[in-house]
Amino acid sequence: MNPLFANIPTTIFEVMSGLARDTGAINLGQGFPDDPGPEDVRRKAADAVLNGYNQYPSMMGLPELRGAIAAHYAHWQGLDLDAGTEVMVTSGATEALAGAILALVEPGDEVVLFEPMYDAYLPLVRLAGGIPRFVTLQPPHFRLTEEALAKAFSPKTKAVVFNNPLNPTATIFSAEDLALLADFCRRFDAIAISDEVWEHVVFDGRRHQPVLGLEGMRDRSVKIGSAGKIFNLTGWKVGFVCAAPPIMRVLAKAHQFLTFTTPPNLQSAVAYGLAKDDAFFEGLRGDLARSRDRFTAGLETLGFDVIPSQGTYFLNIDIAPLGESDDVAFCRRLVMEHGVAAIPVSAFYANGAVKNVVRFCFAKKDETLDAGLERLAGIV
Amino acid sequence: MNPLFANIPTTIFEVMSGLARDTGAINLGQGFPDDPGPEDVRRKAADAVLNGYNQYPSMMGLPELRGAIAAHYAHWQGLDLDAGTEVMVTSGATEALAGAILALVEPGDEVVLFEPMYDAYLPLVRLAGGIPRFVTLQPPHFRLTEEALAKAFSPKTKAVVFNNPLNPTATIFSAEDLALLADFCRRFDAIAISDEVWEHVVFDGRRHQPVLGLEGMRDRSVKIGSAGKIFNLTGWKVGFVCAAPPIMRVLAKAHQFLTFTTPPNLQSAVAYGLAKDDAFFEGLRGDLARSRDRFTAGLETLGFDVIPSQGTYFLNIDIAPLGESDDVAFCRRLVMEHGVAAIPVSAFYANGAVKNVVRFCFAKKDETLDAGLERLAGIV
Ligand SMILES: CSCCC(=O)C(=O)O
Ligand SMILES: CSCCC(=O)C(=O)O
Repeated sequence: MNPLFANIPTTIFEVMSGLARDTGAINLGQGFPDDPGPEDVRRKAADAVLNGYNQYPSMMGLPELRGAIAAHYAHWQGLDLDAGTEVMVTSGATEALAGAILALVEPGDEVVLFEPMYDAYLPLVRLAGGIPRFVTLQPPHFRLTEEALAKAFSPKTKAVVFNNPLNPTATIFSAEDLALLADFCRRFDAIAISDEVWEHVVFDGRRHQPVLGLEGMRDRSVKIGSAGKIFNLTGWKVGFVCAAPPIMRVLAKAHQFLTFTTPPNLQSAVAYGLAKDDAFFEGLRGDLARSRDRFTAGLETLGFDVIPSQGTYFLNIDIAPLGESDDVAFCRRLVMEHGVAAIPVSAFYANGAVKNVVRFCFAKKDETLDAGLERLAGIV
Repeated sequence: MNPLFANIPTTIFEVMSGLARDTGAINLGQGFPDDPGPEDVRRKAADAVLNGYNQYPSMMGLPELRGAIAAHYAHWQGLDLDAGTEVMVTSGATEALAGAILALVEPGDEVVLFEPMYDAYLPLVRLAGGIPRFVTLQPPHFRLTEEALAKAFSPKTKAVVFNNPLNPTATIFSAEDLALLADFCRRFDAIAISDEVWEHVVFDGRRHQPVLGLEGMRDRSVKIGSAGKIFNLTGWKVGFVCAAPPIMRVLAKAHQFLTFTTPPNLQSAVAYGLAKDDAFFEGLRGDLARSRDRFTAGLETLGFDVIPSQGTYFLNIDIAPLGESDDVAFCRRLVMEHGVAAIPVSAFYANGAVKNVVRFCFAKKDETLDAGLERLAGIV
């Protein structure tokens, strides 16, 4: 058995969802919405499953979806991508991430990672034989600093893997942060593997800025997106990758051997969805922002210390004021005794974990959030 | 860029399907059927997409599907698998294969491969850092021999990766072959990674024999299956893996980081399909056998040398009698000049390729096969 895998724990998202299923807890842990996803998009997929083509589509993805992705990013993010050579469809953003890391990182290469980080990054870097170099971001703003990046980047740096908007902190890197990161990538000839699955889930008038669009980053970025997160259809597992042709050619080879292709019926429905008008996407954000506000207010009324959420499905609370210093134990009690599943943020750290932050997913119906709040009453 | 990927060609299946799309050729290359798949299974999936759950299912797969897989294999192959610990759902058999190889093979481990082999095996073994040990199977029966296995297995052998029924030869390993292979696995403490995606596509009264069911193989086998191939729904990308718990625990970790999960709506429809009665599966085989017979007869009438097909969607022709010694050039002419895409079998060899065999997919409507035959007329 490859000890890399044998010794890794089951992902915290699955563990907590499993506990929630087993105990009947309200699941505010793993990031998936109560919302069933747009009915017309689901109807489109259902129609394609019943009456459309159900065999292997083109390996790179349906041309109609690749075109829709390029058009969508042109409209929303000002990117000018060639659908034929710079866009690929994957079986979820997880596959996109695995493929990018396995394709681009060679044994001995250094890879810069920012803590807190999504729990798949580090095992994938290790699987590729990469050497992680960690930058620990500091609360409450989780900003990039020249000093921290200078310590992490070296002539051996092959890539930096990061998430913007950032799960679990629910923060968004500022234009200055991104410019600084781009500057380091250029100086050290490193590739930015940019996990932007939350790009549409940004609140309060913020706009997502793709690193691929920055000066000098066009040829050294891998942009990863997720239809599941854009459309509240996390089970569909339709992801996207955008990269310049020399990078894409290598990513395509990894895709060829990891999943080869992605269900065409779901792909065509996502293509349809991506063409929706601005009001649609603003509406989705608006709904999520209202859920965030409702849950934030409810938690604050109960006396919890809420850390503001700028994007993603998530918000965090600081449990230090409750005298708690073990987020895992706290979450275990939450699910077993109070019937609410949440995620201990220490799961996003490899070293020197923060132990006083707990993440909730607020992408839920009002009833679910209110029921969750009811169960959390009396803890403070 | 990882040179392992940078230097690999695009899979021949995609290349030929691309040429067929671009030239309007009849595509008898890549293995997918004209049959649209069972209508009620598609209806079930369509209903789940429209009215069911579209968020992340359990990482290991929907319990209903895992149960259906175990029950299906109990009925058809006499296996006694625990759905809770020995069955996992993957995003197609390709992911299952990638996960098994990445999870089980460590750098320096030897892996036995049989040529001809599916074109994903070798790059995945290399990606894992494994050292391939090839056994070249000899036409026309492609049998395993004590002598050949003795040369390939060593104390460093970690695994053997093989395909039964065997694509592209359309042969099935005999009970003696499998017993011999199992014997070597036991003697050298090796794991059999058994790609059985064609297990249901066996003709003339043959029954598939899973290596996991053989004496002493229960704890050293990874059985890989494919709903796409069972139900003629190759685009669905729903695969299965069965293995004893100590192996499965490691496979689950690889799955966690490669795709994490698979669309739940397609999973529930596959669960429904697997519970169908024997007549259904016999009917599918019968239809495919009739297509095989029709295409075989047509090719023979045209003067081609057809190598008999025992299973899979495929049959092969020997082009040596035509004075041809370059299958790739022959297939290029077939698609560009005659409007028929086929697969040159040398793509299934890493060394000392056979150059005189060409594979056709016969899983097509009569009209498609007949139109293909018409275009092939006059070549001999
Ligand atoms: C693939 S399960 C994790 C979903 C998610 O993004 C999260 O909960 O952080
Ligand atoms: C994943 S594309 C290949 C399909 C297939 O099994 C074949 O054509 O051999």
